[in-house]
Parts: sequence; C-alpha cells; structure tokens
Amino acid sequence: MTWNLHGTHACEGDLAELVGLRHKHFILKLVKGGVFHTHRGILRHDELIGMPWGSQVFSHNGSPFFLLQPPIGDVLRELPRNTQIIYPKELGFILVNMGIGPGQHVVEAGTGSGALTCAFAYIIGSEGRVTSYEVRPDMQNMARRNLDRLGLLDRVELKLQSIESGFDETGVDALFLDLPNPEDYIPQVRCALKSGGFFGSILPTANQVERLLIALRKNDFAFVEVCEIMLRYYKPEPQRFRPTDRMVAHTGYLIFGRPVIIDHSEASRLLLDEAGLVDAQQTPEELDLNHQYNGGTNGE
Amino acid sequence: MTWNLHGTHACEGDLAELVGLRHKHFILKLVKGGVFHTHRGILRHDELIGMPWGSQVFSHNGSPFFLLQPPIGDVLRELPRNTQIIYPKELGFILVNMGIGPGQHVVEAGTGSGALTCAFAYIIGSEGRVTSYEVRPDMQNMARRNLDRLGLLDRVELKLQSIESGFDETGVDALFLDLPNPEDYIPQVRCALKSGGFFGSILPTANQVERLLIALRKNDFAFVEVCEIMLRYYKPEPQRFRPTDRMVAHTGYLIFGRPVIIDHSEASRLLLDEAGLVDAQQTPEELDLNHQYNGGTNGE
Amino acid sequence: MTWNLHGTHACEGDLAELVGLRHKHFILKLVKGGVFHTHRGILRHDELIGMPWGSQVFSHNGSPFFLLQPPIGDVLRELPRNTQIIYPKELGFILVNMGIGPGQHVVEAGTGSGALTCAFAYIIGSEGRVTSYEVRPDMQNMARRNLDRLGLLDRVELKLQSIESGFDETGVDALFLDLPNPEDYIPQVRCALKSGGFFGSILPTANQVERLLIALRKNDFAFVEVCEIMLRYYKPEPQRFRPTDRMVAHTGYLIFGRPVIIDHSEASRLLLDEAGLVDAQQTPEELDLNHQYNGGTNGE
Amino acid sequence: MTWNLHGTHACEGDLAELVGLRHKHFILKLVKGGVFHTHRGILRHDELIGMPWGSQVFSHNGSPFFLLQPPIGDVLRELPRNTQIIYPKELGFILVNMGIGPGQHVVEAGTGSGALTCAFAYIIGSEGRVTSYEVRPDMQNMARRNLDRLGLLDRVELKLQSIESGFDETGVDALFLDLPNPEDYIPQVRCALKSGGFFGSILPTANQVERLLIALRKNDFAFVEVCEIMLRYYKPEPQRFRPTDRMVAHTGYLIFGRPVIIDHSEASRLLLDEAGLVDAQQTPEELDLNHQYNGGTNGE
Repeated sequence: MTWNLHGTHACEGDLAELVGLRHKHFILKLVKGGVFHTHRGILRHDELIGMPWGSQVFSHNGSPFFLLQPPIGDVLRELPRNTQIIYPKELGFILVNMGIGPGQHVVEAGTGSGALTCAFAYIIGSEGRVTSYEVRPDMQNMARRNLDRLGLLDRVELKLQSIESGFDETGVDALFLDLPNPEDYIPQVRCALKSGGFFGSILPTANQVERLLIALRKNDFAFVEVCEIMLRYYKPEPQRFRPTDRMVAHTGYLIFGRPVIIDHSEASRLLLDEAGLVDAQQTPEELDLNHQYNGGTNGE
Repeated sequence: MTWNLHGTHACEGDLAELVGLRHKHFILKLVKGGVFHTHRGILRHDELIGMPWGSQVFSHNGSPFFLLQPPIGDVLRELPRNTQIIYPKELGFILVNMGIGPGQHVVEAGTGSGALTCAFAYIIGSEGRVTSYEVRPDMQNMARRNLDRLGLLDRVELKLQSIESGFDETGVDALFLDLPNPEDYIPQVRCALKSGGFFGSILPTANQVERLLIALRKNDFAFVEVCEIMLRYYKPEPQRFRPTDRMVAHTGYLIFGRPVIIDHSEASRLLLDEAGLVDAQQTPEELDLNHQYNGGTNGE
Repeated sequence: MTWNLHGTHACEGDLAELVGLRHKHFILKLVKGGVFHTHRGILRHDELIGMPWGSQVFSHNGSPFFLLQPPIGDVLRELPRNTQIIYPKELGFILVNMGIGPGQHVVEAGTGSGALTCAFAYIIGSEGRVTSYEVRPDMQNMARRNLDRLGLLDRVELKLQSIESGFDETGVDALFLDLPNPEDYIPQVRCALKSGGFFGSILPTANQVERLLIALRKNDFAFVEVCEIMLRYYKPEPQRFRPTDRMVAHTGYLIFGRPVIIDHSEASRLLLDEAGLVDAQQTPEELDLNHQYNGGTNGE
Repeated sequence: MTWNLHGTHACEGDLAELVGLRHKHFILKLVKGGVFHTHRGILRHDELIGMPWGSQVFSHNGSPFFLLQPPIGDVLRELPRNTQIIYPKELGFILVNMGIGPGQHVVEAGTGSGALTCAFAYIIGSEGRVTSYEVRPDMQNMARRNLDRLGLLDRVELKLQSIESGFDETGVDALFLDLPNPEDYIPQVRCALKSGGFFGSILPTANQVERLLIALRKNDFAFVEVCEIMLRYYKPEPQRFRPTDRMVAHTGYLIFGRPVIIDHSEASRLLLDEAGLVDAQQTPEELDLNHQYNGGTNGE
C-alpha cells in the first residue's frame, strides 16, 4: 500500500505519527496486533486503528499522544539514514524549480539512504518513474527498505553502479546529483539529460559550488542559478509575536541549470553571455516586473 | 492536453517558453500556423514545432531566443493575474508542508486569478481533486481561463460562492485560505477539514498573523507554525562567487496548523500546552536531533 | 582607570580576558597579588602582569589560556546582569544610526544592569555625558558596580526616578528607551529630546513595535525606521567555506525616529506624508542610488 | 570646526542635511551668504542659520524641506567617492568588534575616498589617531578633502605609500585592510599590529575570503571570524506591520582576527586547534550561554 494522506480514520497499513510530550515524534506503520513501546509507555495498534486522525490517545500508563498522519517532511526526517538530511524548505523548492510532478521521469545519483528518492517517488505519482544510482550496497539496501516501507518501491529503479562511465538513460526530464563532487560527472549528466532538461544539486560549501559552476559552463549549461533558502520560524503567540531565538543558518547551496544547444553565430553571442549569468539586478523573483505575457497576440 | 514537462522536442499543443535578450521571458502555446510577435521580431510556431527543447531559435530579423519548457514557477508568474503572485519558494514549502501530492483532495478559498489553484491542480495529478471558492465572477473567469490554458480545468471544481456560511465539503485532506481575513472563517474551516488535516494560509502583515493565531487557538488547531522563507540568489561566477546585491525581503508569512480532537483530561493538559506552542528552542528543523525512529521495535 | 585597549603588555589595573579550552572566556581585572581560580586550575595575576597581550599562559596544572584585551562586545556579555543582553550587532548600529560618538550627551531609560550605559559611556569619551534613569535600586546598584569596574562611572549620572513625570533634561542630542513599554513615555521623550534629535528603542515583539509606532506618529516623530539585524557567521575553513549550522534568529526590532517641528501648510503636506513613511522601494541603504551631493554648487 | 551633533539650532559652519520630497537628501555646510540650489528651488543659508534643527524650511518657490543634523551614515553616503560605499550596518559592527573608540590608534590601508577613514577619525575622538595608507594620489586627495570638510583632518595622517614593504608603525591597536587582495599583506600586518591587536577586513566574494583565511592561518592569527550582516527594514505602519519588499542582500563578508604568540608545547595544542576555528555550534553570540563571570572569586 502506497503512503498517502487520504482517509479520516487510522487504518491498518497506514503510516501514523504519534506526537507526545516534549514534541517527541514517532512514526510507525499500523499493523493488527502490533505493539508500540516508548519510554512513556505502551500503545496497542489495535486501539489506534479506527481512531479519527487528530485524536488524543494514551499509553498504558496514561501518557498522552496525538495520533496524526505524518507530512512528508516528518517522514523523511524519521527515515533511517546515515547521510545528510534533506529539509522540506529545500525539497519543495527543488520540486517546483525542476518541474518535478506527476508522470515525470527523474534520475538521481547517489541514492544514499533514499530520502530524496522517496520524495521524488511520492511526487511523480503512480505514472511517474525514478531511477537512482548508488555504488555502496549497504546504502542501497537501506534506501530499498525505506522505499518499501512507504509503498513507493515499485516506482523506483535502484541501480548499483557508478555513474563514472555514464548513465544508462538518455532524454531524461530531470536529473539530480546528491554527491559531494558533482563537478566530476557533468559530461555524463549532459549525455543523460535531454537538452532543456532540469539539472539540480545541493552542496554545503562555497568551494564545491565554485567547482561545479566551472564544470557547468564547460558543458553548455545555461540558466545556472545558485541560491540558498533561509527559513525562519516565529513563536505563534498572538500577543507576543516574534521570531524564535535560534534558527538553522545553513543546510546547503542549491544549484540549478539547463543544458542547451549552442549556436555559435554572431547573433547569439550576447544571448549566450546573458544565459550564463544571473544578472545582479534581476533575480528570478524580480523578473516578474519585466515579463510580458503574450497569450493573446500569437495566433492561438 | 495537460501541461507537462515530458518529451525532448517541441510539439503542437505544448506550452513553450522563449527566453530572449535581457532575460525577457515569453510563454506561448504552440499551435500550427501560429505567429508570435515580440518587439525583437516575429517567430512562426511551425518553425518551433519539432525543434529539440533547449535549442536556440531566431526571429525573422535575427534576434536570438532559447526555446524551453517552462518550469511551474515561470508558468505561474506569467499567468494573467490581478492578485498577489505566489512565489516558488513559498509554493514548494506549502506543498511539502501540507502533504499535497498525487491523489489528494485540496480545498482553497479564494480562487483569485487561479495561480495557486493551477499549482495544486498540477501536483495532485489526474487522480486528485481541487475545489476552489471565489465570490467575484471576473476573478473566477480569469482563473478558469488560466486552468484551461494549462489543461488542468477538469481536475478543478470552481465554486462561485462565499464561504461565510461554510464549505460544502467535509473530511477534506488539506485546506488553504488565500484571503486577507482568514481569521473570519476558521470555524468554517474546522467543519470542512478532517481532524488532523492540514490548514495553511499566507499573509503579508504581522497584524493579520496575530489575528489568525487567535482564531486558530479558539478553534482547537494545534501544531500551529508561522514562518517566513528568505531566498537569496548568488551570482554564478566561479571566480567571484557572492550573493546578488538585492533580494526580495518579504512576500508573506506562512501559517500552518492542524485541527485536533481535544481530550480535556488532566493527563493531556501538558500535551495540549505544548501542541499550542512552537518551543522557542525547537523549531521543526531542529527536532531531528531529538527524534527517535521506532521502525523495529513495534511489532511490525 | 578607564577601560581602554591601549598598550602592548598587560598592566596592573587592566581588564584582561583569558580564553581557555572549549572557548571558555573569563574577564578579570589584573591586581597585584590577585589569584584567578578556574575549574582548569589557578593563575596568579603577578605572572600575567607584564606579559605581552596575545600570549599563551598556563594555569598551575598546565592548562593553556590566551591572554587578551577584551573587545567591548565581550565585556558587555560578561557583565553581571539580570536583563536582556545587548549584542554587538545591534549596539554598533545604534551608535552609528543615532550619531552617538565622542562628546555627545546621551539620555537613557531604564538603566537595567547597565550594559548599554557602559557602551554609551565608553563611546562618548571623556568629554561626553550619559544620564540614565532607573526605578529599581537593585538594578541601579548593579549598573553602578559595572560602570565602576570599567572606570566609566564619572561620565555617567545615574538617576533613581521614574520618567513618568518626565525627564529633567531638555535639548538632549540622543535618547534611548530600553523599556518594554516605550509607547507610554513618548510625550516625555518629546520634551527632553531636542527637535531633530535621535530617538531609539529595541523591542522583542511585533506587537510592541506596533504600539510604539502609533505613539511616535501622534507625537510628530518623522523619519521613523524599524529594522532588524541578522548576523550570520561562517566556519573559517578556507577549503570548506560555509555558514555555521545555526544562528541567532532574533534579538529585537530596532526602532529609530526624530522629532520634528511640523508646519501644517498645504505646501508641506506631501513632505509630511513621506517623512512618516519608509517608502517600500527605498530603504535607507538603497537611497544612495538617488542621492545627490551638492558640495560644489551651494556657494561655499 | 569638527563635525558634531551638538546644538539645538543650525549654526554657521555646521554640516546640515536637507530632506525634501521623494526622500531626496542633500548635505551642505552652512556658510554666511551661501546659496543652495536644488531642482526644487533655492534656499539661502542665511535663512537656515539660526533655525531649530528639525524645522521645515521652504525653497524660494515653496518646496518644503526638513532641516536636520545628518547622522554619520548619511554623511558617509554623501561623501564624494569612487569606491565601494561602507554601510552603517557594517561600520557599527567593525567599530564594536575591533574595539575602536575614543583615544585609539587605528591604521588603515587603503584610504580610498576616505569614507572609512572619516568614520574612524570621528569615533577615536580628539585624543585618538588614524594613519591611512594609499598609493593613488587622486584618491588620497579626495579623502583629504572629505576629511577636511568634516573637520577631522588633524586627527589623521595620510600616507602616500605602498604597504608592500610594510607599515611604518608597530604596536598598533587595530588595523583594517580595505583592499581587494588583503591576503598579500598579512605578514606586513603581523609586524605592524601588536600581538593581541584587532585585525579586520571586508571583502565582497567568497573566493577572496578563502584566500585571506589561508594567509591568516599561516601568520598565526587566532580567533578568526567571518560573518555577514543582513539588515532588513520594515514598513513603519502600525496597522500593516511588515518587512519592506526588497532589501540589500549583500555588501560584503567581514573578516576579523587577532595575532597571537604561539607556544608550541603539547599542552597548548588543543587550545591552538580551537582558537583557529569557530566552533560550528558556538558562534560568538551563542557563547554567552556557557560563559562564566569571575568578578568575585579572583582575589580583586
């Protein structure tokens, strides 16, 4: 059964989240006869199954919990992993910025513990497809278990092979490199990704970004964008509304680009110049001020 | 034909983006015999149809353009509108944080010019459903045209009615209020949304957030979160890597919450206290440090 | 002896900072015969006196420390206090934005534990003057000890009285309110501050700022600015340059304004309108783009 | 006459700021018989002299202006320059973080158009001293005129010489490099700066920071900090309180460090390790949580 957020009551097979005191979160799959042990007591799955979502439930010793359907961010955070977490703030922006949605074919390397693979597999839906490369068998196994747990394994092809000698696929819609040295594989990406396709990567240090930018330029990637997302939470107190005291200051730099077919004529030289640069005064968000919409003037 | 990002070559009926000099973007639907006029010359659709995506094309007077599939952010930005734009940074986070994906039922009010409606309709896929309320006929018509243009209209039910007397739906998975005064409709939201469902809103001013927070508390919404997303672009120059000079400083505060079923017993008092508050030291991003995963110990 | 940062060697009477393992900082005043106890051993002042600043020194059991002159930020952080800390990022901006420098007369309320008082007293120099109001004797005593320890007490007049019935001073250059309810004292500020003088305050919540803004408008304060300063540190690793993982997300909103003399003629109506508003597109930092310098054209 | 912010009325010789419609700022020195021309009309200095600060004044054709004492940020912004502006947010933090105050001796290279030189000269007061190096005579002349205009020239020694072969000074309290390649002069800085003194620099790109960090490590600088300051303004509307739409995203990275005397004994190895690093979890702002104050236990 594929993970989803339908239904008003907890059913067998559902992924559930219990939130207890001190914001402790636990994610579990509901199975008949199952028993869930926490340091705050025991809960029987049979008592949870059939409850409306959003209910309060109590362990055998009276400790209270909320019973919830976990959003994808919580699911990914709770997955067993031994690699860097992917945060909702970056995940959402990657999906939207790389056009990843229902029916898409997405290629990824490396699989790691499969968090990003799960997110891609969820969002491309039952008609989409994810192919993910990994060289370490233990990591691939962990990813397989995670995908299986979420019912997403049948949408994903896990490949145990290096991308050193290239990807098997061509004409790919979107390709994401989740590796410390993406700059070493850009020619391979170029071969796999359709021209005009979406390339993305996330890197923690400025030095890595600098190296990747050089490789992208050499391989005719245009519309290269580098950005970072800062998420600031507020204390939800209506009478004392203010940001929280601390925040995550950095998870990684996001890098996007699109391979293009270069015409080296004189006429296109300026266009190429511009496509290789984000204009200092014109970030994508600011472009809406000078865009034009031509729905009505083009003969439709 | 539904908008998608498949295919390696531009086909009739596809939504295409032309990017010319000075980062000018134009979005058009390719139709046989169509003619596209810009101030940099004329392009004939018949010459574009059949070209590989990512190609350079030239207007009749030699002005160069890149031919691309537009990512959703660009599509939404270019939609005719007379309301506030929704940015990819907020859109992605809303989708991920509210569990909006393939197969979901999402309810929204108001429709406005339909940008967010389009995004929801795209991401919930062919098996999902969006219901959207609006009181102004002109806005609804604009939204209808926008949805139709993207081939997404058949996934959406547009209702021309106020939510003052409530939503027609119940047991909804996710509900988003894109209104200046969401605080006035929280009891109605409470009735429509399943308990444990996902509520979201976006508001530009702190005063509005303060009023909404009061309404959410009164109506037993827990796990209330308020946040803002700051997106900073970098100049993609490998030898002079640095942020751009200017950035968008604010688009809006995002507010999320989940209706829960309250048990007012003594045992749950502390849990309720906590659920109503984001702990100053524990933003959702920081919680991964003290979470526990219980996949193996609960009898699966 | 007034605290300063002159001299190349540690002298008797100097304020010194010892930085030990795990970034533990200790601030002490060097006195002949003094003994400094830490949980990492004992250091005798007589061995520190005469050492060059920047030296490494060792406790009796061999634990190493750096011997340094403390910058003002460290001094303020280490002062005994039972009020909110003032951070260097806000302190520096307050000084520069309110024109507080050598020879200035600054009035402050409330004194609190005296951290801001110390900073003002340091920066206005031997020819400047600080007057500080406080209603709690215990706080004033703590502030007095702190000022005395830094040798700055003779530049400061500490008043144990409420500002409810007004300040004793008039024609003041700069006035800072470090109180939770500054909106209650704006008429009093108006009387004390010279017209065109500098008013400042710092407040943690949006609600407080909203109340203060109303009071400032009512009392003819123009050029009102509200801002916040976010300081992000980087890991100083040349090969892995990246921001630190966490940061302080919020200390407070800074509010500045200047009382003006209003002429209510028709001609000035637009000017007043503008002076009451920070134009959305023109923050002070952006103004440099449209400023003009008239050094040469005005008959000097 | 030295620039200051004393006095309640505009006097001859004072630096004044006129703020007109559309936030136009003009800075002028008041002289008897002077005439100030703007595109909004003419103002005679004789009519301004004697007016209370904060007054409204009118040009010959009735255009209104506020008459104000300019804060240092405005003065620096208006100075004739052909180099990068220094913003109040960075200036204030540099002053506080490098211990620059009354009576200090500060060395700077290069002078540029003298904006930072003016700020240092103002804040070190009549008993302090600034020495500033520059190799371009035209820049030095511009800086000299700027300092003279503010009455600060007698506190500053302007040197027309390269720092390639070193600074003339030794035992300096604080030294600031305002150059694109500070990494080339760190041994020279090391010789001029007293051990334990304060070094600072500001650089726009990450690549420059990376090079500087290598040079600082090689030359035994400890407590190296890199940071950036983001300043966000709010619209001062009490009923619609929200950040402005746009902000300055980047001016520069600030780098600080202190030369220390290294003892290479086994005992100090760990200390050296730590002093070369900002711990990821412990930015200076967070240190206040684990600091200890030892005022009472060390035998004073």
